[in-house]
This record gives sequence, structure tokens and C-alpha cells, in this order.
Amino acid sequence: MIEGVKQQKWWGWGEEGHEYGYKDKPKFAPFVQKKVGVDIAAPVQPIPPFSSLEVPASQLSETLRAELESILGAKYVQTDDQTRVVHAFGKGLRDLVRVRRGELGRVPDAVLYPGTQRDVERLLDAAIAADAVVIPFGGGSNIVAALEAEPGETRQVISVNLGRMNKVLEIDEVSGLAHIQAGVFGPDMEDQLQARGWTMGHHPDSFVWSTLGGWIATRSSGMQSDKYGDIADITRGLTMVMPGQVLELRPLPSYSSGPSVREMVLGSEGRLGIITSAWVNVHRMPEVREIQAYFYPTYEDGLNACRQIIESDAEVMMARVSDALETQYIMANGKKSSKVSSMVSKGIQKLMLQKGWDLENIAMSFIGFEGSKSHVRYNKGLVGKIVRDNGGMGVGKGPGALYDQKKYDTPYLRDFMLDRGILADVSETTTPWKYAAQIHTNVTEAFYAKMKELGKRGVVFCHLSHSYHSGACQYFTFAINDASETNLETYDAAKRVVQQGFMDNHGTVSHHHGVGEEHSPWMEQDISPAGVFIQKALFDGVDPGRNLNPGKIVHDGAPGITSNSAEHVG
Amino acid sequence: MIEGVKQQKWWGWGEEGHEYGYKDKPKFAPFVQKKVGVDIAAPVQPIPPFSSLEVPASQLSETLRAELESILGAKYVQTDDQTRVVHAFGKGLRDLVRVRRGELGRVPDAVLYPGTQRDVERLLDAAIAADAVVIPFGGGSNIVAALEAEPGETRQVISVNLGRMNKVLEIDEVSGLAHIQAGVFGPDMEDQLQARGWTMGHHPDSFVWSTLGGWIATRSSGMQSDKYGDIADITRGLTMVMPGQVLELRPLPSYSSGPSVREMVLGSEGRLGIITSAWVNVHRMPEVREIQAYFYPTYEDGLNACRQIIESDAEVMMARVSDALETQYIMANGKKSSKVSSMVSKGIQKLMLQKGWDLENIAMSFIGFEGSKSHVRYNKGLVGKIVRDNGGMGVGKGPGALYDQKKYDTPYLRDFMLDRGILADVSETTTPWKYAAQIHTNVTEAFYAKMKELGKRGVVFCHLSHSYHSGACQYFTFAINDASETNLETYDAAKRVVQQGFMDNHGTVSHHHGVGEEHSPWMEQDISPAGVFIQKALFDGVDPGRNLNPGKIVHDGAPGITSNSAEHVG
Repeated sequence: MIEGVKQQKWWGWGEEGHEYGYKDKPKFAPFVQKKVGVDIAAPVQPIPPFSSLEVPASQLSETLRAELESILGAKYVQTDDQTRVVHAFGKGLRDLVRVRRGELGRVPDAVLYPGTQRDVERLLDAAIAADAVVIPFGGGSNIVAALEAEPGETRQVISVNLGRMNKVLEIDEVSGLAHIQAGVFGPDMEDQLQARGWTMGHHPDSFVWSTLGGWIATRSSGMQSDKYGDIADITRGLTMVMPGQVLELRPLPSYSSGPSVREMVLGSEGRLGIITSAWVNVHRMPEVREIQAYFYPTYEDGLNACRQIIESDAEVMMARVSDALETQYIMANGKKSSKVSSMVSKGIQKLMLQKGWDLENIAMSFIGFEGSKSHVRYNKGLVGKIVRDNGGMGVGKGPGALYDQKKYDTPYLRDFMLDRGILADVSETTTPWKYAAQIHTNVTEAFYAKMKELGKRGVVFCHLSHSYHSGACQYFTFAINDASETNLETYDAAKRVVQQGFMDNHGTVSHHHGVGEEHSPWMEQDISPAGVFIQKALFDGVDPGRNLNPGKIVHDGAPGITSNSAEHVG
Repeated sequence: MIEGVKQQKWWGWGEEGHEYGYKDKPKFAPFVQKKVGVDIAAPVQPIPPFSSLEVPASQLSETLRAELESILGAKYVQTDDQTRVVHAFGKGLRDLVRVRRGELGRVPDAVLYPGTQRDVERLLDAAIAADAVVIPFGGGSNIVAALEAEPGETRQVISVNLGRMNKVLEIDEVSGLAHIQAGVFGPDMEDQLQARGWTMGHHPDSFVWSTLGGWIATRSSGMQSDKYGDIADITRGLTMVMPGQVLELRPLPSYSSGPSVREMVLGSEGRLGIITSAWVNVHRMPEVREIQAYFYPTYEDGLNACRQIIESDAEVMMARVSDALETQYIMANGKKSSKVSSMVSKGIQKLMLQKGWDLENIAMSFIGFEGSKSHVRYNKGLVGKIVRDNGGMGVGKGPGALYDQKKYDTPYLRDFMLDRGILADVSETTTPWKYAAQIHTNVTEAFYAKMKELGKRGVVFCHLSHSYHSGACQYFTFAINDASETNLETYDAAKRVVQQGFMDNHGTVSHHHGVGEEHSPWMEQDISPAGVFIQKALFDGVDPGRNLNPGKIVHDGAPGITSNSAEHVG
């Protein structure tokens, strides 16, 4: 561990000692018991000690080590087992299962901690001269296998942790732009910005454990994107170190200078170089920030309302609606006497029943507003009318405030579930609005059909998370009771059926998690074979030696693609 | 000419018979006399007859002709001189001067008019098999030399006019998406959309003479982009025919599927293939559409107001402000007793003088509002306060209505000026807000210094045309009295000083005109040498034989780049 650089657990999400707790949530254990047949109160196997893992020895050559140490200082060339294992994977469900089992794959031979852009230039040139493979590393929260070396990789593998490059370098207060180093984690970045009255407004679920560079490299999107935009909108300029040269894109609000190089770096997942800093849009902290909760009789009513809101004159910061099962999950996850529980108080339930709602079908929605007091009031008025037109009702801002506090905690629950033999994961997609209800229905049905076929108990639920003029992102969570499983077959089957469901219902392979190695088998279906041909032309032209995080995004026929993915499709 | 496919004059902008008239604008002739010393009432040389041009013979081989005729039908393989000359250039000032002089360069050998995507696939494969050069052609309004073959080109040159592919194929009324063929001209497209209650809201100055495919290929932006977005935002999916394959990008509101192939096609200027259709965002026609006019004591006050408007809670459809000289030009261009003249009526002038304004410095602004009546009222209130905070005042919607009617007429004035020995052209750039005033001042000063050095009379004026969170586009018009000139040296010097001024003051080479051959010398300054390396890797990988509109965007060291550009920089 390097001082000042946060590092996640080797076996799970986030910090040691921070774990999901359910004991003050009386409805949670019964909910899990009912839905997947698992008693979460039963004792669990402890995580084995790190020392029980068999970690392959570093293959870093003495020559390259000496060169890298002369560039960075010995302290910043780490080759100890735990650091290397933490950098061997992201935090996908498949990653967590493998690391817990000690299936470590091709662990990097060294983890480097550059402190400056010049460090990155020099280490990259040294690594390329040694024909090493170079994989950039931010917070390590990637869930699409973008951080691991190909299993068959025989060359030296170098993971480059950007965590020391964590400063807001400059705020242009006239333009609303900030120049920020790529290795900064979300909270650290917002602390630096907010201390001067600014915010970037980018809040992905991974916020606490992800970095600016990672967001850019994966085309991230935050939960306030309806107002602040996706990272692709927020990022106006950037610096990327490439072998022998540095790409410098100045911050520009818009341009017509050929195919957008900025948009080629966005989503490049390390295949073009190492992003070291970016110029991003920042905004003055709003006078008012308010999240209102609403209920609809059905999820489809909520989808319609979100579409009408984005189409209307109203301006919202977020508009989120959960399907029936996710609504039940949220309520089951509420603390005793919390606002989430009380919001479906007897009174409100009675009102719903009077309206003829089926309480098993209700859909909960959070809508966020920002701006001056009068602007928030104006927009709440516009939104309220649309909610009512779709049969919905408002229940105030109490639940929204709670949502706001707890919004980053879900990944800890995944580890908790995994301890209990429940494999839980998430997949998200966008479609045009026309297919929003259809993709939800069809993916859900395909999931349950697959569970039935496999004789497993599982659940899938979903929320609409991001709205755009022409469509929306829907975010699916699925969980399978698979305690008896000794490999990932059931998980693979579920993941396949969800991703293929996206393809079959006008969706994209991912809205903001990226492609990595995990989603690459669907790329030809997503952007057509000619689209993959174009991406491959770009990667091959920029990196003919396949040194820059090879094998990600495009299946390029090289050996060593993990077998699970090769079987994903077909 | 092909029935149903509009074609511009061979020697100038737009239709035969439609020309600029000044006789009902009493202030215009004195304005021109005063500013550049030209008497526009003096007799002018008529345009020489087309028959006086020496048009190089078509080099289309009989084999390729037979093959293309079998694909398209003989009627749609045109090789007559006038059609070929119309397709030899765009409508840049340099193009107009050259074509009037009969300096025709490498005229295409054939102009093809495909009617279907399948036609395009087959013709492209036939052309590539014959090692021909293929240049897509929309409305022919390009002003950055993106439509002409390289002068030294020895292979056959094929211009592909998409004008028969002009239908709105489908409107997805749930999602607000339309699937539209690439060859449709602006007015024809809006007629088809508006007949069903929809609009795309994309109105570049070239609207009447440009096409959807052209907008996408050049990363166009329209005057209502503050609400509707640039074409890069509007275009959600597209089809592009490539040699031996077809790129199909489905309409998606957002995605994380690697480097954005959509954003590689946007701005590709024919270097990756031929765009045949696109899925674009469309919107219901607004209940109210209103353009209000305002005045500020100075241009800088107007810039500040536009920045504060975009930063505020207000939503506008456009926000435009002209510098002092452009304000005088607009007023001089007003018809006798028109609203533009009357708006600076004695009463208003008196008020301005009372406020201590210098009438030589005032800046005129148009701000557009759309939405429900109450939404427009709400936003006019927010904007009105910002205008007043910056010392400005509103003068109502009369001038804006006139602006709205006349907004596409300026290119005709350029031809009128050229007849009188005045070389007029436009260049536009974006910067962060911080540099908006600086780039205006410095580019203007550099232009006048160059005129002084060359002993020429010229003027330059500017308006802010598009606003974004972090910056704005400023659109410069310059005109030089160069009647005695027999080559384009003065023009080149002026254009160079303006473009280099953009680079030296934090601007981009272009906001929405594109790169072509004209701006390619500045690309390394704009996106850094590594950025050009990335674009070149893309072009070389996709088109190793240099058949797809070669030489545009990236200077690739091939012979035949026109000498004027090679000298642009340094």
C-alpha cells in the first residue's frame, strides 16, 4: 500500500471493516428467504486468509525493474503479492468468485505508482521498449474484466495505478471548467471542488471507489446525468500518454475537427494509452437540491411519466423509477422506523387501495430538482402534473433524502450475499423509449425461464436510471441462489440471457459499465461487424504491438481470451 | 440535372435567378463605400457563359462506366461538363474565385445518383475494384475544400450525389426519433417532418443548400443548437456504406461500447465511407416560438450576458450577439422602413444616449425562446433580468421575426460582393468563455494589422452564435477590397491570420464548417500531433488504398495537396 492511495479489499468491495448490515432492517431477512430461499442469519464461512492464496511469482525482469525504479523510485514499483492480487481484477461478480477461490489468472508482475505525467511518459516508454503489457488502474471498481491481463500472456504485465495523481490542478471559474488529475477518487475530487463552491455532478454508483480516469476510460455515467450529462459530455479536454507521444486535447465546448479524438479516448479502456488528466465541466453548487419520492400504480406508468418529463419543458437532475420487485426490495431494505418504511404508512397504503392499486405492483420513483428556490418550485409543479397524469402520487422528500445518503452502499450487499451463496450482479442497457417496457418485460421473462430450466431460484429487478430525449437506461440487478455451485455456470447462463436480451430488444451491450473482456462477445451485434472493424483498425493502428491493455473491447483473435466469454454468444 | 435533385449554380450560391438585392436598403451602399471603399452601384462584369470554360474531359473508363450504368441505369451516371463542374467544388470563397476563373482543378470523371442504399453498396464496390477515388456529395455547400479531388489525382474520380435519397423513412413518435435518408435537403426534410408535427430543430446557415448526410459528415451545428444540440448530439444512429461492408449503428440514446464509432463517422468527411441514412432526435413543434431582440452598450457586455444565461436556470433556444461593426452591418442591411431600421428609432437612440452609451459600440442580440406560453414567459423573465444586470435593454420581437425570415440569405451577398471585387468569407471557432473576449479582440486586431501591412482595405466583424456550458462559438465574417487582385494572396493572408488567431487564443480550427483540405494544416495545433496520428491510424486502417475522399482532414504526405494550404502555416 502506498500512503495516500486508497486500496480496496483483495476479496471484495471497498474498505476493510465496512460491511453490509441487516440486523436493524427487520423486513430484509424474510424478503431474501421468500425470494431466493436463503436464510441470511445462518453462519457463513469466513474469508480465507490472504496467505492461503497461491500467488504466482512476479516475472518482472531485473532490467525492467531497475529502469522503472530509476524512473519512479523503488517505493513506487510494488511487486508484493497482495498489491499484485488487488490489481489483478476489477470487482465484477466473476472477479470476486475467482479471487475468493484463489483462481488468480495472470497476476500483474508489478504495480507502478507514477506521481506525475512525466513519470507516466517515462514508464510507458520503458515498458513498451521491454515489450511489456501495460494496464492502467484507477479505483479498481471495474466490473467488465477490463483490468486483467489475458490468461495466456507471456510478456511482462505492468499495472499502472494512477492514485497518486489526485489533485484538482486548476479551476477556470469563468468557463466552469476544472483541470483534474486522472487518479483522483470521486469523494476526494468533490471535496476539492466543493471547498471552492463547485461540483462536477458526476455520481456513478461506484463513486467512492472509482476515479476520473476510470470514468473517462469506460464512458461512465452518474445518477445525476439528466442534468450534468454523461462523462462523455462532461469531459471537454484531456491528456493521454501514448508510446513515444502525448495526446493533448484542449478544453473546447464543441468543435468540427474531424472524427472526434476525444470520443475515441472516451471508452478506450486503456487500449490507446494512459489518461493522466482531464478538463471537465464544473458547476456552481445549486442553491436548492431536493429529491422527491413518488409512487405509480405500475412500473410502466412510471416509465411513461419519465418519458413525458424529459419531453416536457421541465428540467430535472435525476428521474428514477423502480419496478415492482425493486420497490419491494427498497422497502425491505429500510431500517426499522426509517422514512422508507414509514412512507408506505397505513394511511398511504389505504389511499393506494382506494385508488384500486395492487400493492404488489406499485413502482417507487425518485426525482431530483436543483436550482434556485423558485426554479425548483416551478419544475416540481411541471413534474407533479405529469406524475398525476400518469396516475402517480407524491410522498414528499423524506425517502429521497435517505436514498441520497445510502446510494453508494449496494456493492457491500453483493459481498454479503456472496458469503451466503447468492450470486448477485448488475447489467444495464439503453433503448429508445419505444422499447423501454418491452426490454424490461422480455429480459425479466428470459431470466426466469433460464432459472426454471436450470432448476435454480433467482430474482431480477430493475430501475430506470438515466433519461435522454430519445430513450433511457434501465439498470437490472439479478441474484441467484447458487450455494451448491462449484463453478460459474449458472451465473454465466444468467448473464448471457440478460445481455442477449438487451441485443434482442433494441438495447446496447452497456450504458456505462463498458465492454472489457466480459461484453466483447456482443460487440458485433451491438455496433455491427463494420463497427468492430473500425474500432479494431483504430486499436491496431495506434498499438500495433498489442501492448496497451490488449484483448479488451474487441475480440481480436489473439490467444488467451477467457473461455467463459468465448462461449457467451451462440 | 436529375429531376428532383436540386443543383446550385456552377458559379455561385443557390439557385439561378435568386440574387442579393440592395436597392431597397438605402444605408447599405454608403456602408460598403465607407468601410471598404467600393461603389456597389458601379457596373460589374457579367459572369462568363459556362461554355467559355475549358472543362477537362472525363477519364471514366468504358469498363467502369458500363458497370456503373448496369448498377444505376445510364441516366444516373452523369458525365456532362456542367454536372461535373458543379461537383468539382464546394462553395468556399476560394472555390468561387477559381470556378469563375475557369481554374477547375481535378474535375470528377462521373457524377453518380444512387437511389437506394443497395445502389451505394454496389457502386462503391465497383469503384473500389477499379481503384477509383470516391467523394460523397450532398448539397455542395461545403466551404473547406472537402469535395474536391486532389489536384495530382491520376485515378478515376467519382462524385456520389445522394440527392435522390431524400425521404423521411420513419418517425418513432414514442421515442422522438426519425429515420431519414442522408441526401435530403434541409427544407425538404423539415417539410416532411413538420407535416406530421415534428421538427429536428437543426438550422445551419447553409440549411437550404445542405443535406443531412453533409451535416453529419462535417459535424454541423445549427443556429438553435442551444436547445436542440449540435448534429453530433442529434444523430443517434446511422448507416454508412463502406467497401465490402455496411456499418449499422442503431439509434441509442447513450452507450458505453468502446470508443464511439458514431463519433468517428461524425466529421469523417467521406474518409470512412458514404453515409446513407441516420436516426435523429426530433421534437414536437413548440407551442410558442419567439425571438426577442436586445441591445448592450458593448459586445463584451453581450458576451457576459450570454455566458450568464447559459449558466443560469434559464433555457433558451438560441442566444446570439453581434459585435459593434456587425450591429452596424445588420442595421445598414435593413430595408427602408423595416423593423430593423425602426428599432433604433429616434426614441431608442435617445434612451441609449441618456444611458451614456456610445452608439458606435452598441451590440445587438437575438435570443430565442420555445415551449409552452408559460415556459416562454418564465424564461423571458429570467433572461430579462440577466440582460438588465449587464446593462442591456430589450426592444421586442419585431427585429427577431425579420432575422428569422432572412437568416439563410447571407451567402447570396457573398456572390454579389465578389462581382464587385470584394472577397468575403467566414470562419468560426469555439473557446472556453474565459477566452471569448480575448479571441475576438486579438483576431480582429491581427486581421487589421495584416490589411495594413498589405495596404488593403478590409473589415472583419463577428457574432456569438452558439453557447455551451463551458464556452461559445464566435462566427467571424471578413471582407477585403481586392478588385485588383489576380490571385488569392490577400485572401490567403487574411484567412491564415484568422485561423492562426484561433489557434493562438485557445480556439479550435472550426466549430461547424469542418476541416477538409482548407483547415488541415492547423490540425496538429488543434488536436496535437498525437491526435492527428490517431485520426490517421483510423483512416489508414479503414481505407488502406486511399480511395475514400483522400487528403481531407489529415495531411498524409501524399502528393497533390494544393499549394495554398501547404503554405498556410509557418
